Amino acid sequence: MTNIAKGLEGVLFTESRLTFINGTEGILTHLGIPIQEWAESSSFEELSLALLDGKLPTGAELAAFDAELRANRALTPQLLEVIAAMPRGVHPMQALRTAVSYLGLLDPQAEETTEEARRAISVRMIAQFATVIAAIHRAQQGQEAVAPRQDLTHAGNFLYMLTGREPSPEQARLFDIALVLHADHGMNASTFTAIATSSTLSDMYSCITSAIGALKGPLHGGANEAVMDMLDEIGTPDKAAEYITGKLDRKEKIMGVGHRVYKYFDPRSRVLRDYAEHVANKEGKSRYYQILETIEKTVVDRLGSKGIYPNVDFYSGTVYSDLGIEKEYFTPIFALARISGWCASVIEYTRDNRLLRPDAVYTGASDQHYVPIEQRGEQELQRAEG
Amino acid sequence: MTNIAKGLEGVLFTESRLTFINGTEGILTHLGIPIQEWAESSSFEELSLALLDGKLPTGAELAAFDAELRANRALTPQLLEVIAAMPRGVHPMQALRTAVSYLGLLDPQAEETTEEARRAISVRMIAQFATVIAAIHRAQQGQEAVAPRQDLTHAGNFLYMLTGREPSPEQARLFDIALVLHADHGMNASTFTAIATSSTLSDMYSCITSAIGALKGPLHGGANEAVMDMLDEIGTPDKAAEYITGKLDRKEKIMGVGHRVYKYFDPRSRVLRDYAEHVANKEGKSRYYQILETIEKTVVDRLGSKGIYPNVDFYSGTVYSDLGIEKEYFTPIFALARISGWCASVIEYTRDNRLLRPDAVYTGASDQHYVPIEQRGEQELQRAEG
Repeated sequence: MTNIAKGLEGVLFTESRLTFINGTEGILTHLGIPIQEWAESSSFEELSLALLDGKLPTGAELAAFDAELRANRALTPQLLEVIAAMPRGVHPMQALRTAVSYLGLLDPQAEETTEEARRAISVRMIAQFATVIAAIHRAQQGQEAVAPRQDLTHAGNFLYMLTGREPSPEQARLFDIALVLHADHGMNASTFTAIATSSTLSDMYSCITSAIGALKGPLHGGANEAVMDMLDEIGTPDKAAEYITGKLDRKEKIMGVGHRVYKYFDPRSRVLRDYAEHVANKEGKSRYYQILETIEKTVVDRLGSKGIYPNVDFYSGTVYSDLGIEKEYFTPIFALARISGWCASVIEYTRDNRLLRPDAVYTGASDQHYVPIEQRGEQELQRAEG
Repeated sequence: MTNIAKGLEGVLFTESRLTFINGTEGILTHLGIPIQEWAESSSFEELSLALLDGKLPTGAELAAFDAELRANRALTPQLLEVIAAMPRGVHPMQALRTAVSYLGLLDPQAEETTEEARRAISVRMIAQFATVIAAIHRAQQGQEAVAPRQDLTHAGNFLYMLTGREPSPEQARLFDIALVLHADHGMNASTFTAIATSSTLSDMYSCITSAIGALKGPLHGGANEAVMDMLDEIGTPDKAAEYITGKLDRKEKIMGVGHRVYKYFDPRSRVLRDYAEHVANKEGKSRYYQILETIEKTVVDRLGSKGIYPNVDFYSGTVYSDLGIEKEYFTPIFALARISGWCASVIEYTRDNRLLRPDAVYTGASDQHYVPIEQRGEQELQRAEG
């Protein structure tokens, strides 16, 4: 029997200095620094730069990078028109994939694939993802795009462009933390797809368009949206225990619980739970939070010994929902954060590039011959199928 | 030392019944039938259907499929406008990636991911790739798109839409053979990227947009364009031997020669060489063909024992060039053929789907801590980099 590495699980295909994950102990670090410290003390801008450059920036480097991001926020009128003319009711990730692909048509540097060019394009894409996603949201609601502001942080300006209202400093900071938590996560499927594309030495826009397409799938980016669907289905906190117990008894999948890598608490889920607790202590427990609390307790009691714990998606949807974001935009927001990890990973892989070309075990027919179509009777067909 | 499967070379990650390749003997089969027989007796339409369904079709099945392709050739006015409004001078593959992504916005079935829906979308994409590529070509030249004709084959109609002139039956058939030769080729980088995207259960348009991005890279789809550049650089047949000998002496890479999988003649290159010889016997040897003959002889003499032989890209550019196609469109034409293999491979993989998530060896720093930016001296930075 040939050995098939299904899902490429456990297959090591490259080296990386960016992100370390220990799933059994629930550890996630970027550049060796625990995710909790990034969330507590850093910003999305700083983590993005640190991932791109592989080191903590100096104050001057961060200021220059931040200024560059702010300067690149605006979209061209042509792209705004393309976004406004998109049919209504499309999946926001289809729209994002198309708009980012279009960005490549407008960038005179798009075809350059030196590390310097890839980095310059990355900075522009990190800045413009926010504007593109907000413009798609507005256009799909029949509203004009809100022009970016230069005086807000990346997170604050995004919420401003999305809703048309300036967020409170607390809201902006909370959203910044959510972006930090999602900025990179090793060789997840979308980062891997970006690398697969870059391995042919293709351009940055192709790599990131591919990553958006992979993130779009429900097994990857769509999980926190599914958690919200579950919370809405449960309805009120008093029904949570019975709902989950029933699901567990019937061995049905519970959204936001369990992870291919983590066999213990996902450290990102702890940061978000701490935030939710902080809010609960100040303002009382929200309905969603009470339901999540009950689910977490039930799941950890019954499945914790099997390595099944709540993951980051378990809490992030509630956070976004509290910020007034519709669940259809949870996956685009995931992309808004992960763009930094995608770009940094592509740049790193390209330094020691190798074309990705695995193989499949051939299990089809052998020694067949083409049969002219008029001679194809049932017999030949069965033989060809056999 | 940890074992890294660089480029995933030799890693088996799934089963497939579509395509078998034996690189050391130069064998390529689809559904167990040698590529030479497909090229000689079949058509792009039939091979596409056979790959989608995993069997040789009956006459009625092929007629229905062909009628469906013809009925789906036309693009909506909205997409034609988007293509016409694209900036001039963009890379045709950037334009193709964007237009195909836009197709997803226009397809009401785009979000459906059942096998039935994936297959229906595949048929439309196979049909519409031809119209999209031809429309991009026309728009980039400042010309109106040529509306598809229902009475021509897929290959003949494409050449008609591309050039505005109806091709001769011989030209249409030659182009059909080229499409057959390129329709599928196992787990090449673009097919693998399509599968990586589909492994998150993403939609067909995302999968194919990813594949286009991967094919665009010069290590994958761009090789026959590079062969033409080389032929133009050589100029005249009498200079070919010296040019190649010099390259070989300096151990420089020769375009269209050597292949990650084939260590003997690529069987597809033999089909195309036979065609070129046929033309040469009838019409005399073209300048390009004479140069290729000299290069092939020199390369096989010196490198054949090392498993380095001409591959399919070695001859295909000359064939396209003889058909009056500019080299910038060689890679889009590769996509025009490979769309069938991409779709069939995604559909097959999705039947027994597993999320693709390989891993990287972490080689970065450990046990680091976040240092507040105002305290970041040279010492801390060096430690953080170490």
